[in-house]
Amino acid sequence: MIIIGGTATNGIDERVSRLLNLKLIKVEHKVFPDGESYIRIPEQINDKEVVLIQSLYPPQDKHLVDLFLMIETLADMKIEKINVVAPYLAYSRQNRRFKEGEAVSVKTVLNLIRKSGATSLAVVEPHHYEELEYFDGETRVIDPIPDIGKVISEKTKGPLVLAPDKGALNRAKRLAEILNTDYMFIEKERDLNTGEVRVKNLPELKVNGRDVVLIDDIISTGGTMVQAISMVKKQGAKNVYVSAVHGLFIGDAYSKLIQAGASEVIITNTIPQDPSKVSVVDVSDAIARTI
Amino acid sequence: MIIIGGTATNGIDERVSRLLNLKLIKVEHKVFPDGESYIRIPEQINDKEVVLIQSLYPPQDKHLVDLFLMIETLADMKIEKINVVAPYLAYSRQNRRFKEGEAVSVKTVLNLIRKSGATSLAVVEPHHYEELEYFDGETRVIDPIPDIGKVISEKTKGPLVLAPDKGALNRAKRLAEILNTDYMFIEKERDLNTGEVRVKNLPELKVNGRDVVLIDDIISTGGTMVQAISMVKKQGAKNVYVSAVHGLFIGDAYSKLIQAGASEVIITNTIPQDPSKVSVVDVSDAIARTI
Repeated sequence: MIIIGGTATNGIDERVSRLLNLKLIKVEHKVFPDGESYIRIPEQINDKEVVLIQSLYPPQDKHLVDLFLMIETLADMKIEKINVVAPYLAYSRQNRRFKEGEAVSVKTVLNLIRKSGATSLAVVEPHHYEELEYFDGETRVIDPIPDIGKVISEKTKGPLVLAPDKGALNRAKRLAEILNTDYMFIEKERDLNTGEVRVKNLPELKVNGRDVVLIDDIISTGGTMVQAISMVKKQGAKNVYVSAVHGLFIGDAYSKLIQAGASEVIITNTIPQDPSKVSVVDVSDAIARTI
Repeated sequence: MIIIGGTATNGIDERVSRLLNLKLIKVEHKVFPDGESYIRIPEQINDKEVVLIQSLYPPQDKHLVDLFLMIETLADMKIEKINVVAPYLAYSRQNRRFKEGEAVSVKTVLNLIRKSGATSLAVVEPHHYEELEYFDGETRVIDPIPDIGKVISEKTKGPLVLAPDKGALNRAKRLAEILNTDYMFIEKERDLNTGEVRVKNLPELKVNGRDVVLIDDIISTGGTMVQAISMVKKQGAKNVYVSAVHGLFIGDAYSKLIQAGASEVIITNTIPQDPSKVSVVDVSDAIARTI
């Protein structure tokens, strides 16, 4: 088995290759002046099985088309097992028809990864685990929560772990178990037309003088987190640690978190991050122990 | 049968709908702040057959992913025949392995359009007609040369029609027949490493005092055309009309054509154009008579 490093890996391909002591072949790639991708596997492959690492962070559509091109090129080389590892899965939040006639985008994405020729798919903490069922083949979830927990346990002892919505509760539970502490969730609602998210009911939190760890899967514009931070700060929380698996940080999302009162932001490297701003947790270990 | 207007149509969907007197449904779409597309078919469809118009001009990867999302959404609606019309087909120039290990990109693109659920595919003047065989279903070529010929015949009588390379000769022949005149080609060669194209051998042209029409399928950076214009101008050509089906005009391609001595540029609307610079030939008629 060898590792194939795709066009968007954020260095994860190199670290997984070192951790597992597997040969790495980096895909040769460039973008033509008109914007089209050029993809080439620069070596003959004699292995029957490869692990292709490609994260689908922005620009998602380019990285996705690159993935399709790489998979089909590997399939043309008669590789028997093409195991795709997508640290960040694009389009994961459009996982059902919220309104009639909508594209179930993650279904199309997973279908096409499969139909390009991928045998299996592993994703770091998808938005909903069930959505991986759209991939008609073997799937694996890579769990980076133990690694996030390790970093947080060095910063605070016995914090309240708080999920910013009910859907994120299981993640908060897993983190709380690692930190050997308690957890809760905040209720929120999403406006189906504007996509705007509001905190619905403030739970009876007992956070006065206590550290709080907010944990979600994705930080996008940071809106949900900002509301949660403000709420727990208002109720007297001491330090607020904001954590998520995937950090998109759209626009001034990071500044808004800090302004709202976050002490620190802890995030993985499934999407490239600025280490001068956030504590970066490497998911390579989690990938290496899963694949 | 109805027309579905995709996320990149350059108005062609509206004109084809009027020409054929078919109902048009425009796809609702937006781009989320993180760059992901949102796609929705805003009406119930009771027809068994639709024509989905989506051009794959830059940004090609976004328009391609949009196309996959639209096709699968239509397939989910149990439409029996989803006929895709792609006025401009992206990745058409990467149609074989020029070097071992390269992605045959147009194969992947056509495979995935099919596997998303498209029943048939029609493309305006693809780079190589044979590449449409990668689509495992019914394909049609839409020929805009008669429409280009009509516009050129109003500008010049009996010009020499010149293909900038041997591969473009058939296109020059078709245009010359419409213009009732003669045609030739210029030999060129492409460096496989740099992608640079050079005029190889100058044919014995008798263009002194005569109008010349250069015709190619795509104008990209304009390099090939600039060399051809310079050559025929040096040999005493009168007016040089530069024509192509698809105009990408990367960077200052248009200015370079004019500086090299082109009198006028005639191009279709498969890719959006600036009508203050070029004569735009509408492909809607060609599409309407083909589908």
